[in-house]
Amino acid sequence: MIKYPTKKTTAVNHRNSSGKLGMSLEEDINQTNAYYLTYGLANVHKKPTPVQVVTVSYPARNKAKIVEAYYKKPSTTDYNGVYQGYALDFEAKETNHVSLFSLKNIHQHQLEHLEDVQKHGAIAFLIIRFSRYNETYLLFYHQLETFLKNNQRKSIPRTYLQEHAALITYSLTPPVDYLSVIKQALENKE
Amino acid sequence: MIKYPTKKTTAVNHRNSSGKLGMSLEEDINQTNAYYLTYGLANVHKKPTPVQVVTVSYPARNKAKIVEAYYKKPSTTDYNGVYQGYALDFEAKETNHVSLFSLKNIHQHQLEHLEDVQKHGAIAFLIIRFSRYNETYLLFYHQLETFLKNNQRKSIPRTYLQEHAALITYSLTPPVDYLSVIKQALENKE
Repeated sequence: MIKYPTKKTTAVNHRNSSGKLGMSLEEDINQTNAYYLTYGLANVHKKPTPVQVVTVSYPARNKAKIVEAYYKKPSTTDYNGVYQGYALDFEAKETNHVSLFSLKNIHQHQLEHLEDVQKHGAIAFLIIRFSRYNETYLLFYHQLETFLKNNQRKSIPRTYLQEHAALITYSLTPPVDYLSVIKQALENKE
Repeated sequence: MIKYPTKKTTAVNHRNSSGKLGMSLEEDINQTNAYYLTYGLANVHKKPTPVQVVTVSYPARNKAKIVEAYYKKPSTTDYNGVYQGYALDFEAKETNHVSLFSLKNIHQHQLEHLEDVQKHGAIAFLIIRFSRYNETYLLFYHQLETFLKNNQRKSIPRTYLQEHAALITYSLTPPVDYLSVIKQALENKE
């Protein structure tokens, strides 16, 4: 088995982007993916953030320093990989809102990407965290399609997720065990 | 069907990184992937180049300008996606060498990544171009494993590829039709 290096991070007193105690969703998912990789359960990676490089300087031979660059809008989702022969593709977002997850948090391009990969046979989904409650949900893209068909609103109520999405219970090994939900869904399908 | 924007590029008098006339392999593959996406054949994307951002300045509100950053070594391959329910994962490299493709062109991390995704059920492969001859080969990772088992050398002779790998014939629609090779391999497997 290949031993990938796993990055150890201490969760204590770490403040996430919303200023609350605890790990950010991104860090939790990165740790989860490292766990899956180490134990040979799946191979899922976060894609690098797309950057438009404008100017590169060479302060030394063979050393490139980027001195002007800008963040680009991602055209795909942040995460993809493979699990038991299935292609996985997902986007993960957290919100500080009390009762709603606004779909504005996800670019239109990304939703179209999820629709397209699902059409090609990938397992496409969203991971949504309500930071205030430390609640993390997995919503399959086909569930989101059903929601959008039946609702005009561009935000998903927390109550809707409580009823229709899968709650991913927090653990340390790994922090966001989204594979447990996928495994269950595949078993129900059989 | 989702209409993704396809980037039109003229192939005339464009010099690739090795200074020869013609499109670079990367551009050819990007065009191929855009073609597959538009015609609903597969969803494959190049991952953004990983960049370590050190300093960001804010010349205006809501405008982030990266003023110090460095290229990072990629830990995975450049391309992945989904085709008929299969996860695809590959690396593409061109060489200007007359008779050999050196495996030094591919990071050890990337080979380990290909091994791991293949273990999880992805179709893992390399696309190798000999720029001098404009010859593009598809070598499945399991074929590379066989080569490495039987050879001490860290480079693959062009003659070996001619005999064991699949030659991808150049066309305009699309330039590097690697799916044709995969389709054939899947049919032979059945």
